[in-house]
Amino acid sequence: MRRTLPDIDTFVRGIRSADRALLGQAITLVESTREERQVMAREIISQLHTNLPNNTFRIAVTGAPGVGKSTFIEALGMHLVEQGKRVAVLAIDPSSAMSGGSILGDKTRMERLSATELAFIRPSPSGDSLGGVARKTREAMVLVEAAGFDTVIVETVGVGQSEIAAQRMTDLFLLLLLPGAGDELQGIKRGIVEMADLLVVNKSDGDRIKLANQARAHYLNATHLLPLKSSGWSPEVLSCSALENIGVAEVWDRIEAFKKHIQTNGWMTENRRQQARFWLEDTIDAGLKDLFYHHPEVKARLEALEPEVLSGRVSAIDAAIQVLAAFRKGL
Amino acid sequence: MRRTLPDIDTFVRGIRSADRALLGQAITLVESTREERQVMAREIISQLHTNLPNNTFRIAVTGAPGVGKSTFIEALGMHLVEQGKRVAVLAIDPSSAMSGGSILGDKTRMERLSATELAFIRPSPSGDSLGGVARKTREAMVLVEAAGFDTVIVETVGVGQSEIAAQRMTDLFLLLLLPGAGDELQGIKRGIVEMADLLVVNKSDGDRIKLANQARAHYLNATHLLPLKSSGWSPEVLSCSALENIGVAEVWDRIEAFKKHIQTNGWMTENRRQQARFWLEDTIDAGLKDLFYHHPEVKARLEALEPEVLSGRVSAIDAAIQVLAAFRKGL
Repeated sequence: MRRTLPDIDTFVRGIRSADRALLGQAITLVESTREERQVMAREIISQLHTNLPNNTFRIAVTGAPGVGKSTFIEALGMHLVEQGKRVAVLAIDPSSAMSGGSILGDKTRMERLSATELAFIRPSPSGDSLGGVARKTREAMVLVEAAGFDTVIVETVGVGQSEIAAQRMTDLFLLLLLPGAGDELQGIKRGIVEMADLLVVNKSDGDRIKLANQARAHYLNATHLLPLKSSGWSPEVLSCSALENIGVAEVWDRIEAFKKHIQTNGWMTENRRQQARFWLEDTIDAGLKDLFYHHPEVKARLEALEPEVLSGRVSAIDAAIQVLAAFRKGL
Repeated sequence: MRRTLPDIDTFVRGIRSADRALLGQAITLVESTREERQVMAREIISQLHTNLPNNTFRIAVTGAPGVGKSTFIEALGMHLVEQGKRVAVLAIDPSSAMSGGSILGDKTRMERLSATELAFIRPSPSGDSLGGVARKTREAMVLVEAAGFDTVIVETVGVGQSEIAAQRMTDLFLLLLLPGAGDELQGIKRGIVEMADLLVVNKSDGDRIKLANQARAHYLNATHLLPLKSSGWSPEVLSCSALENIGVAEVWDRIEAFKKHIQTNGWMTENRRQQARFWLEDTIDAGLKDLFYHHPEVKARLEALEPEVLSGRVSAIDAAIQVLAAFRKGL
C-alpha cells in the first residue's frame, strides 16, 4: 500500500517547527519529477515564503576534487554548531545531471556534522540539466531557511558551471585551494578565482606548510590584480587545516567580517534583489519551455518539421515560426 | 520621400542571380529590428531555402586581437578567389551587442578582397544579445550561400562566447595564434584550443620565425593531449605569414584535406544536422520569449509581481506560475 503524504498544512507547520523528517520529505517533493508532487512543493514554498526568517547567511564553498571540501565544511559547520548556529549543507553537482548519481551525495563524508540535530545535510538533487539541478537547490534553500537553519552552505565541485549557479544563490563565495602555486595545479577553471570573496588554502599542515605559504602568496598577488568587486570587498587569502582544525575559527571570523561589510554598505540587500530577479527569470524560462514543449500541437508540428530542418530543406526560422503559430493557436 | 523596398520576388530572383546590392539589402532586412522588415526577411529566407546550393564550405576563423585575423582572411580569401572560388566573410562580434558598433566592421581592413566581385564582406550585425547577433549572422549565411558564395568565413574575436556560436554554424574551426608559447600570452580563453581543427601560427616571418616554431611545438604538444574529436580528425598545427603570403596555400591545402576527411566519413552531414537542430531550438526559444515578454497580460503581471519577488515577499516559483497562467489565459 502506498503511504499517503501529509497535507500541505502539516508540511508548513512541521517545517516551521523544524521537523527534520517533514523538511526532508518536502525537499523530496521539490526534487520529484511528478507533476502533482511539484504542485504540492510549490504550494508549500509559497506559504512558507510569506514569513521567512531574514537573518540567514548563505555561503558557497567550491574547489577542485581532492581539496578537502567535505572535511572543511564539516570543520566549519562544527565550529558554527558549537556557537549555537544551525547549519544546512546543500549541494549543486553538475554530474548528477548527467549520471543521476551525485558525487556530493555521501552523507558519511561528514559524520560528526550529520550526527548533530543542529545541522542538516542534503546531497545534490539530480536533474536533466544543471539549470534544473540548481533551481531545485535554490528551492530547497527556502525550505531549510524556513526550518530555522540560519547558515546555509552550498557546495559545488569547482570544475564546471555549477559555481555560477552557487554564486547566484549565496552571499559569499569561498574558494578552497591546495598548497602549491598555479591555477593549472589547482584544476580550477579560469574565472573562478575572480568570483571568490575568500580564498582558503586548505591542508596547511605538517610538511605542506611551506607549499601552503607559496600558494597563499601566489593568490594574494593574483587577487591584487583583480578589479574592485561590486561589493566593495577586497578578496582575502587565508590558510587552514580542516583536518587538524587549525585556522578554521579564523576563516569564520573573516566570513563574519565580510558579512558585516556587505550588511553595512547595503550590498547584501542589493545582491539578494539581483539574485531574486535572476531566479524569477530563470524559473519563468523553464516554465515557459515546459508549457511549450509539452503542448500537443507543438509536439506534432515539431515532429513533422524537424527532419525537414535537419536535412536543410526548411530553414530554422521558418520552422520556428510555424511551431510558434501552432502553439499560439492551440493554447 | 521614403524609398520603397523591392518586393520579395525581386529579392529572391536577385539574390539567386548574385545581385550584390539586393543581397546587401536583404541582409539589412535580416538585421532590422522592425517587425515588418523581419517578416520580409523570413519570407525571403524561406523561399531561398527550398533550393540552396549544397556544395558550400564554412570556416570559423578566430584568435585574439592583434593576431592578424583580417590580414589572414584577406590572404586566404585572395588565394581562393584566384582559384575561381566565391568567398563571403561574415562576422560575429559580441562587442556589437554591447556597444552597437562593431570592431569587425571595418571593410577597409580587407582592401584587396573588398575590391573583387568574387568576394562579399559584411561586418558583424549588432543586437541586444550575443544570441541575437549570432542568429542574424546565421541567417545572413543562408543569403550569401543562396547568392552563390561557396566558401563562407565567419570571423570572431576570440575572447568571448562568440566562438561557440561560430563553431555551431561552420564546418571547420581555425584558431590563429601568435609566435611565442603559452595560452596566457595568446590571450585566448581556455577551451578554445580544444575546439580547433586547425591551429595556425601567424606572423611567422623575419626574426619571429624562431618564436613561431616555439609556438608550433607548444601547441602540437597540447593538441596531442586532447581527446579524439567526434569528427575523427586530429587537429594540426601550421604556421604562416599572411602579410608576406607565405604558407597560406598550405593552410588551404589542409583545409581541403579536412573537408575531404569529414565528407568521406559522414561527419560533415551529421554535424550540419546537429547544427540545424541547435538553431531550430535556439530560434524557437528566442521567438517564445518574444511572444511571452511582449504579451500585455504578462507585462502587467510581471510589473506588479517583480517588486514582491525582489523584496523576498513572494517566491520566484510562485510569481513564475502566476505570470505563466496569465500568459496562458490571455493568448
